[in-house]
Amino acid sequence: MSLSIRNQLPGTVTSVTPGEVMATVKVRLDAGQEITAAVTLEAVRELGLTPGSAVRALIKSTEVSLATGPVDGLSIRNQLPGTVTDVASGGAMARVKVRVAGGELTSAITGDAVSDLGLSAGSEVVALIKSTEVSLANA
Amino acid sequence: MSLSIRNQLPGTVTSVTPGEVMATVKVRLDAGQEITAAVTLEAVRELGLTPGSAVRALIKSTEVSLATGPVDGLSIRNQLPGTVTDVASGGAMARVKVRVAGGELTSAITGDAVSDLGLSAGSEVVALIKSTEVSLANA
Amino acid sequence: MSLSIRNQLPGTVTSVTPGEVMATVKVRLDAGQEITAAVTLEAVRELGLTPGSAVRALIKSTEVSLATGPVDGLSIRNQLPGTVTDVASGGAMARVKVRVAGGELTSAITGDAVSDLGLSAGSEVVALIKSTEVSLANA
Repeated sequence: MSLSIRNQLPGTVTSVTPGEVMATVKVRLDAGQEITAAVTLEAVRELGLTPGSAVRALIKSTEVSLATGPVDGLSIRNQLPGTVTDVASGGAMARVKVRVAGGELTSAITGDAVSDLGLSAGSEVVALIKSTEVSLANA
Repeated sequence: MSLSIRNQLPGTVTSVTPGEVMATVKVRLDAGQEITAAVTLEAVRELGLTPGSAVRALIKSTEVSLATGPVDGLSIRNQLPGTVTDVASGGAMARVKVRVAGGELTSAITGDAVSDLGLSAGSEVVALIKSTEVSLANA
Repeated sequence: MSLSIRNQLPGTVTSVTPGEVMATVKVRLDAGQEITAAVTLEAVRELGLTPGSAVRALIKSTEVSLATGPVDGLSIRNQLPGTVTDVASGGAMARVKVRVAGGELTSAITGDAVSDLGLSAGSEVVALIKSTEVSLANA
């Protein structure tokens, strides 16, 4: 089976904080970074997620924002530093590849953003991903 | 009122599970599939959602991922099987039409994903939609 | 029609930049801020969006991130400064109300983010919204 979701990062669950309908799940990626996912409590139960569970964090490319440096004071939990390896521009949108520790991320952002940030191969960036945009799959 | 949101699926609320700030709402689509939406509790109250409420599930096309088959062990609650009817490709993004029971979905994914999955008219796919990406409207 | 989408900001289209499958639409909000929406080209056509069109920008609360100040060098196009008016916390998620020029935004973020940012009524914040997360409706 193949998935259109470009970004699939392997890791291990380190904690599960259940709310009444949602839960936050922290995942230590194999490359060492920590990711937070906000998923339904039902999903946590159905996937049997507990500390130690091997998972893949799945992130749609349209959910990956880019910053030219680390951002403090931001509600976005997931910040992965990396280096741009390729930029493909369309008329309105652009697709940016970013090499991060342990893998590569694809980000779909506006062409305006690429211009304003001056992104090209070699640019140092931080990929930002809201925790509600992170899905999990059993590894 | 017209909406830019491409995907609007009619159905009936079957359950509402309230948390302190979020709620999960299950909707039986008219074509029989079940959809889960995670919305704010405030929205549930304001729309007066209870089992039996007639609603439309609204899903932005950038929130629809595609897989070439059913996916087990996935936190993404909503999986609708269908058949690709059309693919339009741009420089970075592509727009894929998928016929599902009861209607048609539009998915905006990267061109890379279309190539990797080998999607074209006739491809069997499963549309994946995270419950936090499903909005609801009174029908 | 009532919508579960909490954030509905009235404005006027100022420009439409069509790509092959997506388009970026700039909207001047009634309160003066500019918003960028990335929607399908098909939606632009169907809604008849051109400069001067009266629209509402629709943003799901799970798509609104918060920063404690303006963020430079960020791909996220939409940054609306405001003041927190209320915080409601659940077990995993929190709902934050932010007063911005011309209205109020609802943001659903993790409880962790609320703690880390020290958000409470009166906090100055900037609401961040990725353009792919902004839908448009004819006003």
